[in-house]
Amino acid sequence: MNFVEERIITDGKIGEGNILKVDSFLNHQLDIDFIEKTGREFYNRFGNCGVNRIVTIEASGIGIACITAQFFNVPVIYAKKSKTLNLSGNVYSVKARSYTRQDEYEVFISKDYLHKGDRVLIIDDFLAQGNALKALVEIMKQAGAVIAGVGIVIEKAFQLGGDYIRSLGIQVEALARISSMSVEKGIVFC
Amino acid sequence: MNFVEERIITDGKIGEGNILKVDSFLNHQLDIDFIEKTGREFYNRFGNCGVNRIVTIEASGIGIACITAQFFNVPVIYAKKSKTLNLSGNVYSVKARSYTRQDEYEVFISKDYLHKGDRVLIIDDFLAQGNALKALVEIMKQAGAVIAGVGIVIEKAFQLGGDYIRSLGIQVEALARISSMSVEKGIVFC
Repeated sequence: MNFVEERIITDGKIGEGNILKVDSFLNHQLDIDFIEKTGREFYNRFGNCGVNRIVTIEASGIGIACITAQFFNVPVIYAKKSKTLNLSGNVYSVKARSYTRQDEYEVFISKDYLHKGDRVLIIDDFLAQGNALKALVEIMKQAGAVIAGVGIVIEKAFQLGGDYIRSLGIQVEALARISSMSVEKGIVFC
Repeated sequence: MNFVEERIITDGKIGEGNILKVDSFLNHQLDIDFIEKTGREFYNRFGNCGVNRIVTIEASGIGIACITAQFFNVPVIYAKKSKTLNLSGNVYSVKARSYTRQDEYEVFISKDYLHKGDRVLIIDDFLAQGNALKALVEIMKQAGAVIAGVGIVIEKAFQLGGDYIRSLGIQVEALARISSMSVEKGIVFC
């Protein structure tokens, strides 16, 4: 087991509705030493990909993206979410659907900060159904940016998001890939 | 002028409704070198305050809080926002009002991560009316945590939030304090 898998076993909890709770170290309270380790590992995996921007989506990817960006020495852009798109129009945007909240929202990034030919590493805490990630992929397409890779801390590999994104020819690296989980049988990694 | 004031003059824009746009380096695209400088400066100002937790609120404070936490070597907790509070109940929570969106939302932190006697540094990108900050102060009160200080990157000192929080006896340090701003006269610092 690597350090992410070990931490999930030690501190992760399976909650109601088969939700993996890792909010003691990843997405409510953040263990900064742990986040630094994930950033270093993303750099090990994508450091030679010519990345010039790290992109994530608010809110839970931001801390991981910022600390990862220290290794790459590049800026972070976090896509914003809004129920309504009442902006100046100078944005790339796409509608996305929230799995947990069961509603729709707009995801957008200002055209000022993402350009044709940019080489983007997308970072996020979780990949499950992949709705947020699909929205980011669509925004990269609108911008003409190249997706150099996708770095995920925890992938629920039994859901379909990761397979779909990989089928587009995009390199997706998840530091922990869960093949199954239940209260009865615990967490099993790929 | 310090480095924050200089950066605001160079890259900040005054938008419609007298809004200061700093999304090229602070709260949409993030210049990580700049954020590191703010983190170091917060450590200069609060490093001897016995801080054991950094608290912020999603989403725009998270990157700054995480990088600041590297200097303090403490975990970050970011308060979450939700329209509805459909949680297990194991949270400190308070209603807050958004100035920009003109709606109400719940701010909450799990009771698992914040305890009586914790010494908290609150970090955020902006302080204007102070609604988000007031919500965090109330949550600290619910938890019995001590507010060791509040570190803000940009304070709109012509709005009332900072005065109010200081009137509670809390040390508020803003790296740039704007006394007035307008398209015609530009940005004036305190």
